[in-house]
Amino acid sequence: MGSALALALLEKGRRVTGYDVRPEPRQALEAAGGRWAESPAEAARDASILVLMVVNAEQAEAALAGPGGALGTLPRGAVVVLHSTVPPAFARSLAARIEAGGHLFLDAPVSGGVSAARKGALSVMASGSTAAFAAAKPELDGVASRVFEIGREPGQGSVVKTVNQLLAGAHIAVAAEAVAFGASLGVDTQVLYDVITHCAGSSWMFANRVPHMIEGDYTPLSAVNIFVKDLGIVLDSAKERGFPTPMASQAHTLFLAAAAAGHAREDDAAVVKVYEKLAGVSVRRSTPAAGN
Amino acid sequence: MGSALALALLEKGRRVTGYDVRPEPRQALEAAGGRWAESPAEAARDASILVLMVVNAEQAEAALAGPGGALGTLPRGAVVVLHSTVPPAFARSLAARIEAGGHLFLDAPVSGGVSAARKGALSVMASGSTAAFAAAKPELDGVASRVFEIGREPGQGSVVKTVNQLLAGAHIAVAAEAVAFGASLGVDTQVLYDVITHCAGSSWMFANRVPHMIEGDYTPLSAVNIFVKDLGIVLDSAKERGFPTPMASQAHTLFLAAAAAGHAREDDAAVVKVYEKLAGVSVRRSTPAAGN
Repeated sequence: MGSALALALLEKGRRVTGYDVRPEPRQALEAAGGRWAESPAEAARDASILVLMVVNAEQAEAALAGPGGALGTLPRGAVVVLHSTVPPAFARSLAARIEAGGHLFLDAPVSGGVSAARKGALSVMASGSTAAFAAAKPELDGVASRVFEIGREPGQGSVVKTVNQLLAGAHIAVAAEAVAFGASLGVDTQVLYDVITHCAGSSWMFANRVPHMIEGDYTPLSAVNIFVKDLGIVLDSAKERGFPTPMASQAHTLFLAAAAAGHAREDDAAVVKVYEKLAGVSVRRSTPAAGN
Repeated sequence: MGSALALALLEKGRRVTGYDVRPEPRQALEAAGGRWAESPAEAARDASILVLMVVNAEQAEAALAGPGGALGTLPRGAVVVLHSTVPPAFARSLAARIEAGGHLFLDAPVSGGVSAARKGALSVMASGSTAAFAAAKPELDGVASRVFEIGREPGQGSVVKTVNQLLAGAHIAVAAEAVAFGASLGVDTQVLYDVITHCAGSSWMFANRVPHMIEGDYTPLSAVNIFVKDLGIVLDSAKERGFPTPMASQAHTLFLAAAAAGHAREDDAAVVKVYEKLAGVSVRRSTPAAGN
C-alpha cells in the first residue's frame, strides 16, 4: 500500500523518499525516480511531509519514535500524515505529542485498496488543524480523489474510519452468512449474487467480496487479520466509551474463528469458510462463469 | 402495497378486481377504473391471474382457503401469484396443494417498497413452472421492472427472498449500531452519512434508512414488525435446515428489542432507538439539513 502511494505521487511529479522494513519495494521505487532510505530517520530528513502507511498503531509508533525513528530528523513545521487505521484515542495522543514537538499532524485514514492507492484515487477521511491540511495538500492531491474534512480535532478522522470498519467488517460477515445459508438451502450462489446485487439486501462489501467466495479465490487483497485488528479497534473504542456493539462483536468473533481455523492471512472473504466448515456446505457456484 | 399494485396494473390497461380486508382502498381503486369485490372468492371468480400481496403466510392461507377464500371460485388453469414474503417451506407446500387443485402457482416475492410498486418498478424473484411464468406474464410485466427467474421449483424464489431479508435486516441493525456509535464518539451523524455513503462501509439499507434516523422521521414505510417477521422466517428456516446464523439472530434480537420498547409499528429504522436508549445518545444531526 505504501509502495502504491509512493508510485502514485512520483507519477504526479512529487519528490519521494521511501522506507520500508522489507527491501522488496526498493527496486520499483528507484525505477520510478524515487529515492530509497535506510531508515525512517533518513527518509524524514529535509522532508516537508512525512507520510505513514503502516498496518497499525504499534508500527506507526516504531516508525516515528523507535530506533532510527522519523521524529528525530523531521524538520520543525513539517506535517505528519497518518493514513493507517488506528484507535481514535491513539491518533489524539499522538497528535498532542507531535504538535508539542513543533510539527503538524493530520489524522487521515483512507478507504480504498491497493489499486485505488496506485491510481491516486483513495478516499481520505481527515481531521486536523487548518495548517495541517494546508501543509498536507500536495500529498492529499496526489493520492486521493476525495478528501473529507471531518473536523479540526485529530481523532475525528479515525472515529469515522472506525465506524466505516464496523460497517465493512459486519457486512462481510453478513454476506458470508447469507451466501452460505442460500447454498445450504439449495440455491445456486451465482444466481443469488446476480439477484441480490440488484435488491435492497446489497452492500458495497456484498458486491465486492461475494465473487471471491463463489470463485473460491482467497488471494489476500485485504486479509482476515486486518478485520481481526479493525473490529478489535471498534470493540476497544466501544469498551472505552461504554457503548454496546452486538453486531460488531459477533462479526469480530467470526473473523477470529476464521483466523483460528488457519485462514488469518487469506482474503477477508474467507470468513465464509467458518460457515462452510460448520454447516458442511460449499458456496462455490454450480456452473462456470460465462467466459471462464 | 396491494393498492399500489392494482393502480399500477390499471394504468397499464389491465382489468383489475380488488379485495382488501380494510375498506380504505376501495375508493381509489374504483376511481382508477377497477372493480371492488366483497371477498377473495368474489375477486377470484372468472380471473385468469390471482395476485396475493398480503403480510404473511397466515393471511395468504386465509385469503385462499379461509371463509370466502379465493380457491373456491378461481377457474381451473388460472395462476396464483404469491408476492408475499413467506417461509420457503410454506411456498412449496402451498404450490403442491394449488397444483393438485388444477391451478398454476408462481412463488414470486418482491423487492422494493410501496413507491416502486406504484410505479410498476418492483424486482420479482420468482420460481415456478414454465406454464406458471407464461400465465403470470401480464401481471409481472405490469408491476416489475426486473423479473429474476430463479428456477422451476416453487420455494426457490422464497429462498432468495429469505436470504435478501437476512441481509437487509442485518444491514439496518448494523447501520443503527454504526450511526449511534459514531454519535457516541462525538461525530456529527450527517457528516458520517455523507462520508460513509462514498466508502466501502455503505449498503443499500445504510444509504436508505440512515436519513430516517438522523432526521428522526419514523413514519413507517416498512415497520419494525416486518423485520421481526422476516428475520423470524430466516431463523425458522435456519433451524429447520440446521444452519447457524449468528448475525441474523443478533439482528432479530435487536428488532425484537425495538418492538418490546414500543416501536413495533414505527419505521424499521427505529431499531436505532434501542442503541439510543441503552447508551443515552441521540443520532439526530447537529445542524439542520441544507434547504430545511
